[in-house]
Amino acid sequence: MQDYLREFKPAGRLLLGPGPANAHPRVLQAMAMPLLGHLDPDFLRLMDDVREMLRQVFQTGNGLTLPISGTGTAGMEAALVNMLEPGDTIVVGVNGFFGGRIAQIAERAGAKVVAVEHQWGRPLAPEAIKKGLDGQRKVKAVAMVHGETSTGVLTPLPELVRLAHEHDALFMVDAVTSLGGVDLRVDEWGIDVCFSASQKCLACPPGLAPTTFGARALAALDSRKTPVQSLYFDLNMLRTYWHQRSYHHTAPISMLFALREGLRLVLEEGLEARFARHKRVAAALCAGLEALGLELFAQEGYRLPQLTTVVIPDGVKDADVRGALLRDYNIEIGGGLGEYAGRLWRIGLMGHNATPANVLYLLSSLEEVLARQGFEVPLGQGVAAAQRALARSV
Amino acid sequence: MQDYLREFKPAGRLLLGPGPANAHPRVLQAMAMPLLGHLDPDFLRLMDDVREMLRQVFQTGNGLTLPISGTGTAGMEAALVNMLEPGDTIVVGVNGFFGGRIAQIAERAGAKVVAVEHQWGRPLAPEAIKKGLDGQRKVKAVAMVHGETSTGVLTPLPELVRLAHEHDALFMVDAVTSLGGVDLRVDEWGIDVCFSASQKCLACPPGLAPTTFGARALAALDSRKTPVQSLYFDLNMLRTYWHQRSYHHTAPISMLFALREGLRLVLEEGLEARFARHKRVAAALCAGLEALGLELFAQEGYRLPQLTTVVIPDGVKDADVRGALLRDYNIEIGGGLGEYAGRLWRIGLMGHNATPANVLYLLSSLEEVLARQGFEVPLGQGVAAAQRALARSV
Repeated sequence: MQDYLREFKPAGRLLLGPGPANAHPRVLQAMAMPLLGHLDPDFLRLMDDVREMLRQVFQTGNGLTLPISGTGTAGMEAALVNMLEPGDTIVVGVNGFFGGRIAQIAERAGAKVVAVEHQWGRPLAPEAIKKGLDGQRKVKAVAMVHGETSTGVLTPLPELVRLAHEHDALFMVDAVTSLGGVDLRVDEWGIDVCFSASQKCLACPPGLAPTTFGARALAALDSRKTPVQSLYFDLNMLRTYWHQRSYHHTAPISMLFALREGLRLVLEEGLEARFARHKRVAAALCAGLEALGLELFAQEGYRLPQLTTVVIPDGVKDADVRGALLRDYNIEIGGGLGEYAGRLWRIGLMGHNATPANVLYLLSSLEEVLARQGFEVPLGQGVAAAQRALARSV
Repeated sequence: MQDYLREFKPAGRLLLGPGPANAHPRVLQAMAMPLLGHLDPDFLRLMDDVREMLRQVFQTGNGLTLPISGTGTAGMEAALVNMLEPGDTIVVGVNGFFGGRIAQIAERAGAKVVAVEHQWGRPLAPEAIKKGLDGQRKVKAVAMVHGETSTGVLTPLPELVRLAHEHDALFMVDAVTSLGGVDLRVDEWGIDVCFSASQKCLACPPGLAPTTFGARALAALDSRKTPVQSLYFDLNMLRTYWHQRSYHHTAPISMLFALREGLRLVLEEGLEARFARHKRVAAALCAGLEALGLELFAQEGYRLPQLTTVVIPDGVKDADVRGALLRDYNIEIGGGLGEYAGRLWRIGLMGHNATPANVLYLLSSLEEVLARQGFEVPLGQGVAAAQRALARSV
């Protein structure tokens, strides 16, 4: 019998990389519910629920708040192709891989891209963005990543939003990794467009990209002179589908079952409690890693709790360590992207996975694997430092 | 407590509309499997399995055969934006809603669209496409829908493929509703690009769009002078992700678990047996509907077995009948699209749902509902005609 005709029996992994994180068991159950039609009254109610809960998680009252039917990059592309027209200027802050991707997509949408390149591992500085803005006659949008998945850096946004608005530009932000893990106040901070993904701190499988669009973004959409280049991502059509239930595309029903359950879990816990939980376990992880003599990559004070980046020590082989963690402990952690491939590890504690148990399990496994690779590691000391940090923060 | 904070408990529906169809129970189980990372060795093996099984279902040896991470329209858009460059001419056969959508997407990709409008309910005639082709200097592609979901019509393709190739144009086909339900021979018929969806005859949830690209399509891709306007749908990047496992986007893991299981079910049954099953139950359904005095919409000889269209009789209210079927029998059937809204019913018997039991259950429910609406219906006669058809075809 061909292998593909056999039952698929994957190993149960603990996903502590940059995402997907493990989905909550209740979310997995929701995925297995029998399907509904995409115009079924029960499903239309579910769409309302999802929209309302997304608003709460984005901390916004935006009418146009909906999940795009694709993964994170689909949300990014949907946001950009709806806001940009050929010839528009966009200033993009690039302090990691995903900032670079924003620039690429904007360029393919025919925009003039002013990429403000910034050191990886550091947050975007308002002065740098200001410089990018100042040279331009008319800027349609300023875009950047809130929590860079490639570096584990969190860029504080309010000052940057002010800058964009001073130049009468839309402020667009990638919250793929930040949403549901750290504070993100769309309305209070004045963010015009925000896009995220289901598989990180929302603890759902990948396949949906929650987005929200404010009044200025809608005005930009309404005053377009050219059609949106993508029909699949056309917000005018999506708006009609989500608001007037007129057919646009067949929504990924089961993924929406999952997202509803994932959002319900977020709201049951409460945003504040959820952010505090991510912060607490991240602090324990960082304490543990430093006690092992490992160097953290992201600048202190700007570390993303849900994603910690570690410099791979000299002489330690990236692939061997990650391979052993996967094979012997069923733990996945991520490697570096771009020029940091082989030089960084990325450790995610996202959503359902942000627990003290996972911190201790990871550190104890990592200690053993590093020792095995010949790296001089004070066995048990990472675990102990994390335990002390956890005990202090009960 | 807010309604959205309560558990979601949808009614169990029998989905006999134009799709999604009910997913097979084994597929739903697969959706609930714990996640894997998108670069996990187990997941990479799964990608190989999916690719190999998709090739068998498409009846092709095409190297580039992969599911696009979105629903059916995403597959259509991916196919078009990769093949077309601004200024290219495409001839589109339009004999229903989805042919019209091909034309719209092609136009947004900057192509010059020659739409060959054809009567809804009839297959596309080679002469009509020939006329569309003859006036053009250079045609990049000819595109159309194999099984029109809006009308229930199946267009025979081989002659049309020959026409396209005589004009040195690519032949692109929408097999959203046809794949897995009727014969579709990508290689034997010479189809260059084919796209489909997971939620029809493959009996999976919506969320993936299987596609396949032949040698001529790859040559067109390789000789592009402009970048593909979409990064999310960029086949060059997707090819690298699927073949060399270099990161492009986070695949919708659970949906791929589901698709693997759905494809396994197709191959376990065998393509021939699956096509015969769809044909058998459709014949019984048609016999039953005609015995009730209902008129079928699609031209005889060109009816799509998996989707039967019925003319709503004078005096019968579309919404009342569909509402009663849904409310009292938990059966969903579809209404008409575009100018046929309120004038047609669309009854799907797709994938897992193409069973004698569903035919008899639908007919018996429909008879009761029609009688209740005051339509003079010979009670029991639709069921009886279907039973006879089924008995004859055992």
